[in-house]
Amino acid sequence: MFNFSLKVYYEDTDSGGVVYYANYLKFTERARTNMIQDLGFTLNQLHDDYDCLFIVKKVNCEYLQSAKLEDILEVHSKIIQVKNASFELEQNIYRNNKIIFQSNIIMVCVNTKGKPKKIPENIALLLR
Amino acid sequence: MFNFSLKVYYEDTDSGGVVYYANYLKFTERARTNMIQDLGFTLNQLHDDYDCLFIVKKVNCEYLQSAKLEDILEVHSKIIQVKNASFELEQNIYRNNKIIFQSNIIMVCVNTKGKPKKIPENIALLLR
Amino acid sequence: MFNFSLKVYYEDTDSGGVVYYANYLKFTERARTNMIQDLGFTLNQLHDDYDCLFIVKKVNCEYLQSAKLEDILEVHSKIIQVKNASFELEQNIYRNNKIIFQSNIIMVCVNTKGKPKKIPENIALLLR
Amino acid sequence: MFNFSLKVYYEDTDSGGVVYYANYLKFTERARTNMIQDLGFTLNQLHDDYDCLFIVKKVNCEYLQSAKLEDILEVHSKIIQVKNASFELEQNIYRNNKIIFQSNIIMVCVNTKGKPKKIPENIALLLR
Repeated sequence: MFNFSLKVYYEDTDSGGVVYYANYLKFTERARTNMIQDLGFTLNQLHDDYDCLFIVKKVNCEYLQSAKLEDILEVHSKIIQVKNASFELEQNIYRNNKIIFQSNIIMVCVNTKGKPKKIPENIALLLR
Repeated sequence: MFNFSLKVYYEDTDSGGVVYYANYLKFTERARTNMIQDLGFTLNQLHDDYDCLFIVKKVNCEYLQSAKLEDILEVHSKIIQVKNASFELEQNIYRNNKIIFQSNIIMVCVNTKGKPKKIPENIALLLR
Repeated sequence: MFNFSLKVYYEDTDSGGVVYYANYLKFTERARTNMIQDLGFTLNQLHDDYDCLFIVKKVNCEYLQSAKLEDILEVHSKIIQVKNASFELEQNIYRNNKIIFQSNIIMVCVNTKGKPKKIPENIALLLR
Repeated sequence: MFNFSLKVYYEDTDSGGVVYYANYLKFTERARTNMIQDLGFTLNQLHDDYDCLFIVKKVNCEYLQSAKLEDILEVHSKIIQVKNASFELEQNIYRNNKIIFQSNIIMVCVNTKGKPKKIPENIALLLR
């Protein structure tokens, strides 16, 4: 389980007074970037040294409560399954220990030309 | 079926060279706004006259091909089901008549305090 | 003078109820992209065939009135001066023929490695 | 002087491979929000208890170097001048102690209806 914390700024909200719905996906992406970095890699390294990018293939998400300006949110990311060329995550967002957003996300490993490729072995090991 | 066309600008892309994945949800939201307006309502009217907002409850989507800078995209929106307080849409995005993104979205009708409410009758009629 | 029209969507607004201040710069960039295209070039062509990108060097802007959800805005772009490796624009935004935002923007021509370069002659001619 | 640190994510970049130019303004806004909070106020408090918002009136900025994916940036914010209903900031962005963006920003105090108003006295004191 990887935890990532963030604050909600004006840029994240819309005139409905709450966080704009697409921006929860930004929050999960920030969490995934920090997860990769916590595993000991940078996105730039993956790109330059491994000819490898992880791109989102599928998102399945539900909005439970609205986040608001100045909220402190926690993204909890959990790897569910690692396959040859893809992996699956559960990423839920919490405010004050209460879940407000849940998502299931499938990431695919591609080379820098966008073709699917096997996840490099040492990265797959860490993801597992 | 409602069609909405848009152009991809720098703001929509990321350093992977393609449209940032969360921005496809912005595109579907622009399409929904225009769909509501085509039905004869404005979002402001819904808010002020009907005490009603449509918010996204669930998204289920798949990324098939990457959109790029200057692409012209078409969002095809189709209402699948209208219930008392919610409706379901299929929103697919096309480039040159080829599908690149597909989504299934559930919208909920809420009042301006965020409480779920019945979809106003004349709007429900038009959605059906 | 180049005119470009746009609609304000939820994504452009913030919880203050108006368009988020950084997004006016997005609007001016959309207008510049369309201006380049109206001159007969695409950004991709500039990049691929001319090894050339225009990047923003300076912005000087003033916010006069707030734009709101569903507003229709007009961006008026006027080239003020074309130099060897840069050009200067005045880009003002109007709602119902009333100015709400004014900006003065300096663009620099760079190659794809980010080094400043002379504006290609046929483009410079058209900008003038 | 208030310092605020941030990381550059995919969402901040564009297909030019660098941070999208409007997003530097997001970074300065995050810094201003944290500055206000460091002074002992929340934006929600200002809104609810003081009927007061600070909105951007003018931006004057220069782009010196491009920020990239995964960069760690520092926003240095310095209040230059506090007037009755407005204040002026210098906000510069650094990477590895080298300046990459500089800006001069004028903020205006308005009430929740958007009308300019005097900065509440205890806040003005702290800003000074």
